[in-house]
Amino acid sequence: MARDEFAELNAHWRAANYLAVGQIYLLDNPLLTEPLRPEHIKPRLLGHWGTSPGLNLVHTHLNRVIAQHGRDALCIWGPGHGGPAVLANSWLEGTYSEIYPDVTRDAEGMAKLFRQFSFPGGVPSHVAPETPGSIHEGGELGYSLSHAYGAALDNPDLLVACVIGDGEAETGPLAASWHSNKFLDPVHDGAVLPILHLNGYKIANPAVLARIPEAELDSLLRGYGHDPLYVTGDDPATVHRAMATAMDQALERITAVQRAARTAGGAPDRPRWPMIVLRTPKGWTGPATVDGEPVENTWRSHQVPLSSVRENPEHLRQLEAWLRSYRPEELFDADGRPTAQVLSCVPEGTRRLGATPHANGGLLTRDLPVPPLEEFAVAVDKPGASVHEPTRVLGGLLARIMRDTAESRNFRVVGPDETHSNRLGALFDATAKAWQAGVLPTDEHLSGNGRVMEILSEHTCQGWLEGYHLTGRHGLFSCYEAFVHIVDSMVNQHIKWLKTSRALSWRVPVPSLNYLLTSHVWQQDHNGFSHQDPGFVDHVLNKSPEAVRVYLPPDTNTLLSVADHVLRSRDYVNVVVAGKQPGFDWLSLDEARAHCARGAGVWEWAGTEGPAGEPDVVLACAGDVPTLEVLVAAQLLRRHLPTLAVRVVNVVDMTRLLPHEEHPHGMPDSEYDALFTTDKPVIFAYHGYPWLVHRLAYRRTGHPHLHVRGYKESGSTTTPFDMVVRNDLDRYRLVMDVIDRVPGLAVRAAALRQTMADTRTRHRSWVRAHGVDLPEVADWTWAG
Amino acid sequence: MARDEFAELNAHWRAANYLAVGQIYLLDNPLLTEPLRPEHIKPRLLGHWGTSPGLNLVHTHLNRVIAQHGRDALCIWGPGHGGPAVLANSWLEGTYSEIYPDVTRDAEGMAKLFRQFSFPGGVPSHVAPETPGSIHEGGELGYSLSHAYGAALDNPDLLVACVIGDGEAETGPLAASWHSNKFLDPVHDGAVLPILHLNGYKIANPAVLARIPEAELDSLLRGYGHDPLYVTGDDPATVHRAMATAMDQALERITAVQRAARTAGGAPDRPRWPMIVLRTPKGWTGPATVDGEPVENTWRSHQVPLSSVRENPEHLRQLEAWLRSYRPEELFDADGRPTAQVLSCVPEGTRRLGATPHANGGLLTRDLPVPPLEEFAVAVDKPGASVHEPTRVLGGLLARIMRDTAESRNFRVVGPDETHSNRLGALFDATAKAWQAGVLPTDEHLSGNGRVMEILSEHTCQGWLEGYHLTGRHGLFSCYEAFVHIVDSMVNQHIKWLKTSRALSWRVPVPSLNYLLTSHVWQQDHNGFSHQDPGFVDHVLNKSPEAVRVYLPPDTNTLLSVADHVLRSRDYVNVVVAGKQPGFDWLSLDEARAHCARGAGVWEWAGTEGPAGEPDVVLACAGDVPTLEVLVAAQLLRRHLPTLAVRVVNVVDMTRLLPHEEHPHGMPDSEYDALFTTDKPVIFAYHGYPWLVHRLAYRRTGHPHLHVRGYKESGSTTTPFDMVVRNDLDRYRLVMDVIDRVPGLAVRAAALRQTMADTRTRHRSWVRAHGVDLPEVADWTWAG
Repeated sequence: MARDEFAELNAHWRAANYLAVGQIYLLDNPLLTEPLRPEHIKPRLLGHWGTSPGLNLVHTHLNRVIAQHGRDALCIWGPGHGGPAVLANSWLEGTYSEIYPDVTRDAEGMAKLFRQFSFPGGVPSHVAPETPGSIHEGGELGYSLSHAYGAALDNPDLLVACVIGDGEAETGPLAASWHSNKFLDPVHDGAVLPILHLNGYKIANPAVLARIPEAELDSLLRGYGHDPLYVTGDDPATVHRAMATAMDQALERITAVQRAARTAGGAPDRPRWPMIVLRTPKGWTGPATVDGEPVENTWRSHQVPLSSVRENPEHLRQLEAWLRSYRPEELFDADGRPTAQVLSCVPEGTRRLGATPHANGGLLTRDLPVPPLEEFAVAVDKPGASVHEPTRVLGGLLARIMRDTAESRNFRVVGPDETHSNRLGALFDATAKAWQAGVLPTDEHLSGNGRVMEILSEHTCQGWLEGYHLTGRHGLFSCYEAFVHIVDSMVNQHIKWLKTSRALSWRVPVPSLNYLLTSHVWQQDHNGFSHQDPGFVDHVLNKSPEAVRVYLPPDTNTLLSVADHVLRSRDYVNVVVAGKQPGFDWLSLDEARAHCARGAGVWEWAGTEGPAGEPDVVLACAGDVPTLEVLVAAQLLRRHLPTLAVRVVNVVDMTRLLPHEEHPHGMPDSEYDALFTTDKPVIFAYHGYPWLVHRLAYRRTGHPHLHVRGYKESGSTTTPFDMVVRNDLDRYRLVMDVIDRVPGLAVRAAALRQTMADTRTRHRSWVRAHGVDLPEVADWTWAG
Repeated sequence: MARDEFAELNAHWRAANYLAVGQIYLLDNPLLTEPLRPEHIKPRLLGHWGTSPGLNLVHTHLNRVIAQHGRDALCIWGPGHGGPAVLANSWLEGTYSEIYPDVTRDAEGMAKLFRQFSFPGGVPSHVAPETPGSIHEGGELGYSLSHAYGAALDNPDLLVACVIGDGEAETGPLAASWHSNKFLDPVHDGAVLPILHLNGYKIANPAVLARIPEAELDSLLRGYGHDPLYVTGDDPATVHRAMATAMDQALERITAVQRAARTAGGAPDRPRWPMIVLRTPKGWTGPATVDGEPVENTWRSHQVPLSSVRENPEHLRQLEAWLRSYRPEELFDADGRPTAQVLSCVPEGTRRLGATPHANGGLLTRDLPVPPLEEFAVAVDKPGASVHEPTRVLGGLLARIMRDTAESRNFRVVGPDETHSNRLGALFDATAKAWQAGVLPTDEHLSGNGRVMEILSEHTCQGWLEGYHLTGRHGLFSCYEAFVHIVDSMVNQHIKWLKTSRALSWRVPVPSLNYLLTSHVWQQDHNGFSHQDPGFVDHVLNKSPEAVRVYLPPDTNTLLSVADHVLRSRDYVNVVVAGKQPGFDWLSLDEARAHCARGAGVWEWAGTEGPAGEPDVVLACAGDVPTLEVLVAAQLLRRHLPTLAVRVVNVVDMTRLLPHEEHPHGMPDSEYDALFTTDKPVIFAYHGYPWLVHRLAYRRTGHPHLHVRGYKESGSTTTPFDMVVRNDLDRYRLVMDVIDRVPGLAVRAAALRQTMADTRTRHRSWVRAHGVDLPEVADWTWAG
């Protein structure tokens, strides 16, 4: 490297380090134009210094190669708590001021940049939606590499660098995501360049990968399928040179891999992608010792190395010396503008990492070509006369979308090995499963360029899809209902990201993250109790209502209508719970559309109330299995208590039950009261935990009359109908509930109640003796 | 291997395979004493064949080495859906009949074993609590290896074999847990023998690790720190011989490692533990093709290879041929008892894998020596006169327990790098952090035999602790509140395990799994929105009430009292949410004990109602921060509205709010009504999502008057007090709520209400200008 280039890179790095320290400490005197005094220091010192110099080094060198190699690039900052570093770089390259014109690239803006950092009313201390160039928060560690791969998919010209901290590298999600390289197509996808940053320590401990022998680490990374390049040191000149060389080598190898794969014939084998191992001191260039304890290159530099600067003159002195060690007077002119030397490595325009449109994916989003539902809908002349597998029909729709995006390549379906089992197999008529590892003659539907992605890691599926969405593309995650809890914390973080993004005018909405939860709690014949958990709905409904939607379509056409809606939507997390087993068709496509648009409504054909009258009781339902049980109960009541006025209400959109003030979809009280009445018993058969319905509806006038049945954690390997009996959600129990709660019925219908109770007893004996349900259950049909 | 030994091992394996197939298919005719007819076949065919022959092979060979090497052993069956295999082996070795005398080891018992499998009223298709010898369900994949390490800790003479399926190996939690070997002490801990079973396929896809080149796999496993031994083949004779050799080698290496470490001086370096890679066909010995499609050695053998046996005569014929291929007449005598040849490899007594007491850990549990709390309690003469950091005081108690278990070694504290940050640092006076990787002079508190375990993987922490508990030992998991959601699905599965175990008379209760959630939602000054989530409580309260407890101690002495209780308890998941920041002491130890025993009670000293009177309003609180806000609000009301009768109720045990019928701790209505009244406004300041309180209390008579404040997903990096203001949980807002809800106050206290509103506005301006809270907030003291 030429002496000049080193000087330029080092100046940029020093400037970024200076700005990082400034953000953590300074309220005022940003350029140190006067001696540092206690009143220049923030009253609360917050932020993470330890990782910042390493992130600044990476940013400086990414700037260099992006400019020199002419690459479009995005960077995922795994150590997202190193917010000061990324903010510093964004301010240096000018993108920060372009997005936030108030924070100018001069002394006044620098003062604002410093003051606002981790300050009430200011910006978060982590890389966050507010940070230009970011699609990754990095507070909850583990997802950087899967986000990087998600961003690289179907972006053949994009380089996605990904800094992985050695703390993050210990997490399960990160450990699993190394194998993403068995799914990345060198032809149609971009490149991911992992940069494993070994600074040696976490909060209070050494990091595992930093403390195993280098040969063992090398073996591990080669086992992951990478060819590692090593950059090690604590002397800036040495490290800059080594890092520049490693970056050049990495980019040359990436170019060679892509060229080989993309020329006629292609490369025969999965490529071994390069990666960089960067080993530099934690808190590098910060105070070596504080109060007699070593700080630089120890865990003590993780957050704020000098903690009592306002009160302790020695700390204040050390801070000033530390800041001046970067020689700010050489880096910024008298007005506080970065010098030409500092900026010489910075690329132009959207090549700047803070300005790439891939980090504001809505800019690049193209509408998904969702075809007319008429071509896929099932014909329903009357309710309950035919049977379909809802997800299999949905599979046809998804296959069409997959076909229609063959050119645009902006749609992916992910899942942990369940696409076929969830009856979405039609997708394989349109595309294959992405697969870059070995193939045998017996294999089916595997291809390097497939757009269904299956790995037995819900974390990796979720991370890929988040990265894909946040860079502007569409997708669907099909998952076992019980095991989607595996990504509870990831969806938390994604919803937090969406909530914050929605409030930023410069962030353009991105496609929603859509879950299809099938193989649900009521259909676990094979697997039993461990596979029975409907609580993901409860989990997401705790989060920001503006970003969360929950749908339980009860049949095939309603599933199509819901899918049409969620696939077109933006900036939501949509949870769709639907069955894959054969189920009755209740609504025609037109009826389904109207019903889903309302989100909840009366099914007049199923009830017995007159056109003008008030019902004696409301039978409400949400979910495919509860809907069936309610409809059978309604039929039993019609037959045995023909004068009882029963109203059947089906709920597709659970958030409609919330008060209007609590959720954009929430019903006004007038609408809720008209649907459910204010004073009649409501027997609500719900797919999941029954108290969820109470939590949604507790403010309603009629709430004291609401009685909910649902899953109450009584599970096993048994028949689906036995499952509803075990959980008191079955047709017979619902009829008993009606009898118990409608005034006057207890006496009038005592015999019917006894028959219902006896049938339940008979069922339990029958199923234990024969292993299958009572014939009257198995053979039930709708007597429409 | 001698010819006889091969014949014996193969006979055992054939018998186990026969019994596995029988469980999946047969209702009757267990010994095939007559030709197979449709009525001998189960009406619903459920189960997982694919992994079963591999598991049977492992079990056979574990039997062999346990007997020959004289080892106490436990096996974790990662592919837990291979229930038929483990049940078959347990029946063969006799443990099944010892635990379930009804299922005798003869033809009659074999028929029962077959029939009950995955049959309504029978046993689950997975390895489950009902399965002898198991501590691991294996339905939700990923946790086998961390469970194995947890079981091995502090069991120096125990060998823990762990079968890891190649599907499971793709999950994040499993991928992270390979590094557990950097925490296993060869002196004080037992050995873990991972057996990676590459059968090549998941449900519908090849498995990644089965399809990378063997050199790459070898590099990966060596990178994990293991020396792999390979067993590959599809010819039983070859595989038996290779497996026996590999098992012998593995055990010899383990013995050598332990001997070296345990002799004077010890071994200088972290040992490289052996492991076995077993590569055999999926569905081995099953039908090669079915309906013209290849089945053996493909994903099609994952569940039930012949799916229409009752209806399709060709399938029936194939099944009979398959069953007879094992030559049952050579394996079982006329009465259906296994022959001596079959049983010759089976070890004796508790050496049998189904009979080891380590898999029924309560048998081995010794009470934890929890010292008298008096030695650690803080002196409280009057409320609010002193300040302590609750978790720091708790740290002293934990340190004492750690010291007092130095010999018994039956207590561990785990956490993702936060023990010190959570102010439990006193532990390091009593023990160190377990660490077998490299050490530098600047490191602190690292040691090979430490009993605090920190790895930046909540999954691994949870898995270790589950394995430790289920083998009968005690522990505590200290975790950031927001990030405990990372293990949502793991705790689901653990609670399911406990719920089922509690109903089995032969399972002896094990120590509870205790969470200490600190660094909670209100104390995220550094980290902001991504670190703010109090929803874990909601998550666990969805699960089986008999196994779940939730405590929110409001100060130091209540935390001690709660800790004392949970550390002594059995068979629960206890969630304790407590602050680490300095907080006022409210209760003396005696008061704290009485209050925690009640779980909820009136704090008379904080309210203003007379001894006989009814309050005008109830101010309720749960959690340290809400308690402070309620007490300040009560003080403001006393000063400004001295005639208002305010009752202050503090809730420590959240489940007390539930109806008595719904939870063992639930209050009867009479008690609830006496505490909260039936008709007075209740302003409830709750630590987490406010609707949780409604979900718990919706059945109470006074529920329409209940108004809850809590966290409503409005977060940022800001001061703790600003956080409560943003979420309408602050003292001033609570006073306004009282004024708004107590009849007649709106007019009388209009000026006070305005002052409160103005103070909130003033706070927002002040904190944005100064970065710290209003002086009147920062300097507030209890005017008791």
